[in-house]
Amino acid sequence: MRRAHRARRRRRHHSSLDERGRCALRHGEAVRRDRERLVGECAVRASVVRKAAPPLIRDVPSRARAVRARRACPYDRGRGAEDDLAHREASAARGPRRDPDRGLGGPRRVRPAARGRHGDVRRSAPVPRRHRACRGERRRRAGCGRDNDETRRPVPTSRQGSRRRVSDTPRVAILAEGLFSRTTAKTAIGVLRYARYQIVAIVDSTKAGTDAADHVGVGRGVPVVATVDDAIARGADVLLIGTAAAGGRIPDTYRPFLSRALERGVAVWNGLHERVLSDPRLAEAARRGNATVRELREPPRELPIGGHRRPRVGATVVLTVGSDAAVGKMTASLEIVAALRRMGEKAAFVATGQTGIAIAGEGISVDAVVADFIAGAAETMVCDAAERADWVIVEGQGSLTHPGFSGVTLGLLHGAGPDLMVLCHHAMRWSMKGYDDGLPLRTLPELVRIYEDAAAWRRPPGYPPSRVVAIALNTGDLLSSDPPDLALTWIQSASTVTKLPAADPIREGTAGADRLARALIDARGRHADTSTS
Amino acid sequence: MRRAHRARRRRRHHSSLDERGRCALRHGEAVRRDRERLVGECAVRASVVRKAAPPLIRDVPSRARAVRARRACPYDRGRGAEDDLAHREASAARGPRRDPDRGLGGPRRVRPAARGRHGDVRRSAPVPRRHRACRGERRRRAGCGRDNDETRRPVPTSRQGSRRRVSDTPRVAILAEGLFSRTTAKTAIGVLRYARYQIVAIVDSTKAGTDAADHVGVGRGVPVVATVDDAIARGADVLLIGTAAAGGRIPDTYRPFLSRALERGVAVWNGLHERVLSDPRLAEAARRGNATVRELREPPRELPIGGHRRPRVGATVVLTVGSDAAVGKMTASLEIVAALRRMGEKAAFVATGQTGIAIAGEGISVDAVVADFIAGAAETMVCDAAERADWVIVEGQGSLTHPGFSGVTLGLLHGAGPDLMVLCHHAMRWSMKGYDDGLPLRTLPELVRIYEDAAAWRRPPGYPPSRVVAIALNTGDLLSSDPPDLALTWIQSASTVTKLPAADPIREGTAGADRLARALIDARGRHADTSTS
Repeated sequence: MRRAHRARRRRRHHSSLDERGRCALRHGEAVRRDRERLVGECAVRASVVRKAAPPLIRDVPSRARAVRARRACPYDRGRGAEDDLAHREASAARGPRRDPDRGLGGPRRVRPAARGRHGDVRRSAPVPRRHRACRGERRRRAGCGRDNDETRRPVPTSRQGSRRRVSDTPRVAILAEGLFSRTTAKTAIGVLRYARYQIVAIVDSTKAGTDAADHVGVGRGVPVVATVDDAIARGADVLLIGTAAAGGRIPDTYRPFLSRALERGVAVWNGLHERVLSDPRLAEAARRGNATVRELREPPRELPIGGHRRPRVGATVVLTVGSDAAVGKMTASLEIVAALRRMGEKAAFVATGQTGIAIAGEGISVDAVVADFIAGAAETMVCDAAERADWVIVEGQGSLTHPGFSGVTLGLLHGAGPDLMVLCHHAMRWSMKGYDDGLPLRTLPELVRIYEDAAAWRRPPGYPPSRVVAIALNTGDLLSSDPPDLALTWIQSASTVTKLPAADPIREGTAGADRLARALIDARGRHADTSTS
Repeated sequence: MRRAHRARRRRRHHSSLDERGRCALRHGEAVRRDRERLVGECAVRASVVRKAAPPLIRDVPSRARAVRARRACPYDRGRGAEDDLAHREASAARGPRRDPDRGLGGPRRVRPAARGRHGDVRRSAPVPRRHRACRGERRRRAGCGRDNDETRRPVPTSRQGSRRRVSDTPRVAILAEGLFSRTTAKTAIGVLRYARYQIVAIVDSTKAGTDAADHVGVGRGVPVVATVDDAIARGADVLLIGTAAAGGRIPDTYRPFLSRALERGVAVWNGLHERVLSDPRLAEAARRGNATVRELREPPRELPIGGHRRPRVGATVVLTVGSDAAVGKMTASLEIVAALRRMGEKAAFVATGQTGIAIAGEGISVDAVVADFIAGAAETMVCDAAERADWVIVEGQGSLTHPGFSGVTLGLLHGAGPDLMVLCHHAMRWSMKGYDDGLPLRTLPELVRIYEDAAAWRRPPGYPPSRVVAIALNTGDLLSSDPPDLALTWIQSASTVTKLPAADPIREGTAGADRLARALIDARGRHADTSTS
């Protein structure tokens, strides 16, 4: 049975990746063909995310699409967490709203970037050879349903069995009712930018009839619809909660939408702390509609105490750390992984938050585990990833200077035990998010010192210290009134004050991400020298 | 109904405290009289621990008994975490094993300390006047069943209703099968030393027939028995799990004991991460015996993100921080509370771990909350305690230099936001507990700097920094071969290297705890000057 599964999966992936290494499943005829073949194993991948406890890291695919989009228009992809009105207007001007009557009906296939400067970027961009998936890599990708016994564990109660099976190629609608903006829809933006599955609609009745990119600068061609029924009419079989307010409560305005989705048998993916089925009315709706719920933040049942395992010798662990929450640590991590792969390195991404998990398909949300096991969860993921890659890039969480989340940050820092760190900072952020009444951010040199000190606390003396080796700057929210070279000035000054390479991997495109990756490769050499000397 | 409860409780406590402010409920006739009167409200206090979510701090009673015991014999009270054979032998010599056939049957009333030097200390020790409970304090003690609506919350599922009601004055047996030693029975030792309820037996078949104090240096007169049935024969209506291994699994050797207790209707109090009723066999036994389970580590359902509340102006928050886990932070906190009260100050103890909760009856185990809410849990407890006391002494957890638990420590540090800190250190600890293969502890001056730096990260600039103002040293595990003044030399050298007052509040008795308390009072003056200048 297990062997049969493996064989089928292998065949599927051979046919589903085209010669450029992209997933051909997105393309009409192939989608239908594959879907028919996959009927017997339809819920496998979805359930694996919850089942595969220890080896929870999956290689992130090459970022051909992201690279192309970036070339087309650096900041049209909605990076920041703050809402920049001028920038949004500029985006809208470049990519005019689509006629709601024309072409909104079908699911998005290849996500087009802004068309203003580079014409129709629906045409596939050239992908460098080393970026293409080789047969081994294809198999590895298929292997998200790893079938060693270790990865099997009982399905958590919140999953409620596989009453209705989500197809292996989910068509996702993102729920962001009243909150679909750059400030509030962090999860939606991340998924729109990086996820490999189809996004068929955004559900936000206050913005219905518009295009996603008009509001968050990313997701051109994805319609915003008013109701779950509209999303289902566009083919949605999954409703992903696309916002994540601190505290993790399900907003009350979302409950009717979730209820409707569950009633109609649409699976719900939830990245909030509150569990969907803990609301009796939603549980009842799920029962009526025979629908499943996937809790992205549900931790594995068994986790160790951290500090007792070390990653494979030879693997380099990199953690992105931040001056605050929501400054772009996940984005920086994903861009660094892509850049390292462009350079021929074997890199793995470790997702530690709900958006990262929704994108990578695996991971543990370290802010949702029982507090004693933060480090253990991080360590487990890092050690497992280090078995399969030479570079383990760990998505950071929060900030050591954040009064609410610092515990998670230090637990992750000590659990991941990084060799190198990349400090992420949002250039427009002056005070701690949510504490604007007088909690200014620390300066970059102070932050470098703080993270290096804290990383050293868990090390025995003589162990090569963990160093911050690069600054990933997020300059996404510049105003149109700002001088055009202000962002570059910021990047240069960040580099000057910290004496470290600095880059904005989005604004500067591959050049920026490559600079960060080169800083890591150089530092690894130095780190190895220190270790052996 | 609520009023009637209040009235009854007030009456009960008037009659149950003697003129020395001690709880007369422990004394024969009064126990029976009160118990009859309290039939109608028997499970109130037990359930309140789980119900009272936000204001989870209760004043700790004055430590008359502890003080007396300390005077009798400083280190006979089993402080250290390491097992000191020589010391144990010395204890045994001082307080010879009780004849198993004589006087083991009844529950312990007033716990006798070692009798070697001071004769029979069952005779009540004189208690200073300010140590006696005034009418207000008695009422406050009674108020553990606070009846404002805020404290009411649904009983967690693991509680399984109030099928069998534990009496309001529980008679507790402590389960430590095969593990009843100084190294492993931290919870048992803390409860034996400080809890106000009766401890009728220790269950450890490997040491049956002996006296508790022979093994852990505390609990003279409490028999060690082989089975749960023996404990029940001695009057036990609660079985408390008295050990807490890292990882928090229920040891398999405990399950038959727990099963037997539940089958016989004895309530189980569990401070481990693993929930008792998650084991189907134990759940079945509880169903058969109609028994309840109290999960000491079960967090409240609703917790905030930290960093948004401040304690009442005028209240001084003190956090005990440590060079490692299990160095005596809870003990130092309780002794400081007692010392401050001796000086006429209004002090409250905030329990943040399972042993502290088992002793104080309230608190949140911050290592068991969802990681995002560590700081929020601490902040909630501290702010609520600050409404009722001028000194809030918060029990610390773990260490910032502990690879596994540091996240909890930083979350607690930033959530509690202490004005002052007391650094706790175990003089015989050279390497991090559980990491003896090369993770030496930091020096005391380094630790002072680490904690002060970390505390400052969450503060805005200009805010008076939080300072470590005293060192609480744990010199409990000295060998008999050590020079007699070695402990004092250690205390002096700790003071010299850190330029701070240092004391061992157990070895030095009230003088030590008073020195710590005076250091806090002096530092509060300086802190207030800094704040206003």
